[in-house]
Amino acid sequence: MTESQIKSQVKEAVEQVRSKKPLAPSITNTVTINFVANAQIAVGGSAAMVYLPDEGELVSEVGSAVYINAGTMFPVYEETLPRTAKRLFELKKNWVLDPVGIGIGSLRTKLLTGFKDFPPSIVRGNASEIIALAKLWGIGGASSSNGPKGVDTVDSVTDAENAAKALAQYINKKRSGLGGAVAVSGIEDFVTDGETSVYCKGGSHFMEKITGSGCSLGGVCAVYAGVASPFVAALTATQIYNLAGKRAESKVTAPGSFQVQFLDELYLATAEDVANNPFELK
Amino acid sequence: MTESQIKSQVKEAVEQVRSKKPLAPSITNTVTINFVANAQIAVGGSAAMVYLPDEGELVSEVGSAVYINAGTMFPVYEETLPRTAKRLFELKKNWVLDPVGIGIGSLRTKLLTGFKDFPPSIVRGNASEIIALAKLWGIGGASSSNGPKGVDTVDSVTDAENAAKALAQYINKKRSGLGGAVAVSGIEDFVTDGETSVYCKGGSHFMEKITGSGCSLGGVCAVYAGVASPFVAALTATQIYNLAGKRAESKVTAPGSFQVQFLDELYLATAEDVANNPFELK
Amino acid sequence: MTESQIKSQVKEAVEQVRSKKPLAPSITNTVTINFVANAQIAVGGSAAMVYLPDEGELVSEVGSAVYINAGTMFPVYEETLPRTAKRLFELKKNWVLDPVGIGIGSLRTKLLTGFKDFPPSIVRGNASEIIALAKLWGIGGASSSNGPKGVDTVDSVTDAENAAKALAQYINKKRSGLGGAVAVSGIEDFVTDGETSVYCKGGSHFMEKITGSGCSLGGVCAVYAGVASPFVAALTATQIYNLAGKRAESKVTAPGSFQVQFLDELYLATAEDVANNPFELK
Repeated sequence: MTESQIKSQVKEAVEQVRSKKPLAPSITNTVTINFVANAQIAVGGSAAMVYLPDEGELVSEVGSAVYINAGTMFPVYEETLPRTAKRLFELKKNWVLDPVGIGIGSLRTKLLTGFKDFPPSIVRGNASEIIALAKLWGIGGASSSNGPKGVDTVDSVTDAENAAKALAQYINKKRSGLGGAVAVSGIEDFVTDGETSVYCKGGSHFMEKITGSGCSLGGVCAVYAGVASPFVAALTATQIYNLAGKRAESKVTAPGSFQVQFLDELYLATAEDVANNPFELK
Repeated sequence: MTESQIKSQVKEAVEQVRSKKPLAPSITNTVTINFVANAQIAVGGSAAMVYLPDEGELVSEVGSAVYINAGTMFPVYEETLPRTAKRLFELKKNWVLDPVGIGIGSLRTKLLTGFKDFPPSIVRGNASEIIALAKLWGIGGASSSNGPKGVDTVDSVTDAENAAKALAQYINKKRSGLGGAVAVSGIEDFVTDGETSVYCKGGSHFMEKITGSGCSLGGVCAVYAGVASPFVAALTATQIYNLAGKRAESKVTAPGSFQVQFLDELYLATAEDVANNPFELK
Repeated sequence: MTESQIKSQVKEAVEQVRSKKPLAPSITNTVTINFVANAQIAVGGSAAMVYLPDEGELVSEVGSAVYINAGTMFPVYEETLPRTAKRLFELKKNWVLDPVGIGIGSLRTKLLTGFKDFPPSIVRGNASEIIALAKLWGIGGASSSNGPKGVDTVDSVTDAENAAKALAQYINKKRSGLGGAVAVSGIEDFVTDGETSVYCKGGSHFMEKITGSGCSLGGVCAVYAGVASPFVAALTATQIYNLAGKRAESKVTAPGSFQVQFLDELYLATAEDVANNPFELK
């Protein structure tokens, strides 16, 4: 894809979401669940959150795309997450995985491992999470990373480039060419479908000073994945986050106000502005 | 009731809550639980949230009224919700049901069906949810509605008038004349006890651009139901929401700021202003 | 400790947290979990929330200190909380208990009782909660308190002085002299290690008009407990809350704005200002 094609598709995705209001149901953590829903709605989507196995399957059927975030594990997830991922895979429906907390606890490890067989169309995480997921799936070769510190990265985004590309290629192949994308969040964000790769610029240092900027980005990826390809969806979400983050930072001095202003900027951003947010083709 | 009697009772409810600080415990979804609590406190009530069966029974005893919101189902609800509803019914205590997500999943359907035998004093929902609950309980005749889209309505408020009246009448009868009310939220809100019906005006288009405006309205209904009849409680809550929504909208340009300003306006609204918020007797 | 020593150690704790970014994982209620995480991050710490037994043990190992808040009980807590408390005790690691909701339900009572054998290094609660916990553990003599109303206190802070001192002394003894502290939150806050006791001034009446000011204070105690003694940690957290509360109140007129401004002030407060927030040695 050329830079101009990318901009055109990002613009289209922003507009499609605002006109179609796609439902992007989530199974997500309790810490940031409210922020995820508000961010999804602010960009024009519709949110619905569930925990139970048959509810996960049902929302996979009625939703335009689905978001699974591994942040806070409940016992029932042992049944909910595999059944939901399997149904999504069978339906060939886009879904987004945020492997947050990877490495913490046996259930999380088991479930994240199991997703290898029914992979998401988009993985969104910080550098350490993306590297850890590639390792867990035995993809993308060796890495010296020791994994995340709790939910925080210890690696830089460039460290995760290879893991991200390998994951995206694996996903696309496993999903029979339906596409796959990985978004690595950091100071600059790396988005790749395994072939085309982009660095997105903007954002704000305040994004690390609030909880949920990553989680909600995953939820917004799912909203765009209801109207666009995995790569365009991941890129559009990343671009609107970078734009809104930069704009919000310029108007506030601290993280409480930042979160409020950030939601405002997600809502106010024009499709044109999102498409023109600075990025660089690699 | 005349318009003047209604205003007087609404004013009284607002004042009673601010002086008595009634405890209105909730069993509610994890998405908007924080917003529910903050809205309940902002209008002058006290909040406490629980999940477990004996806790549901206990807070039914110590609370002034209770709020049950079906938004995010946990497995333990299979025991918690029936036991809590039964205890509330035996105690003849007011409680509010928000049947959000009706139609999603077998447990939710089973539990919402079971409430027919121990009904709430107030049901709060959007038009599609009210129609779907009336159908589920076999009340109020046929409807062509296909039910909500996720958690969003596909019907207009006027479509739900008959279902709402029938539900309110059923509740009142089943609760041996202790009263029952239904509040249908929409662009204009319909509140009925099965005989007296009112359309409330005001609110804001931003209420659909944030998550939890409906859920928190249910929680605030429960606060007022701790000091007033089901109808007056549902109406007072709806009126303060319409007033605060309208005022908040006039001061902001986007949903992040709206949510903050809306909580402020709930807190700042005078009893007089709430009572005089425009409404129309049907 | 002299007043000047206290100030110096509080200043040190604020600075250490900002430079080391200690991870303070939580097992906490779903109502205020987002606010807890945001407050922890705003003062400079790192947050991670879990529910499952082996996750509780693991974060006890990797975290600098841990926070357990009894607000909303899940069934799995029957296993998670005892295992986590035991591991923390064995690791001699600081952890903070907020016994919120004490008295509501059999599981909560059982778990809070069990903590007597593996006590936290800090207990944070309102006056009624502190008195109730001392009673539950059979410590500190008789009291006429009837316990909290839901999650709200019915006692004054001075009523809880003896219970707080007795708890702190018990903790210190049980933890083989590693220190223990109790923070009683109210209009003025009482912080004691059983020998040195302090009344902290400031704060805001709006802290009772939002949910989570107490819960998040507990989480912030855990952040400081990752770099300081239980007493200094509890005091530093209480002081930064009083300072931020007072400053936020001066800039807003209602609770929605207060919550946003309060997070901002936590982030903006200098170590010097926190150390100099008015307090009184008893």
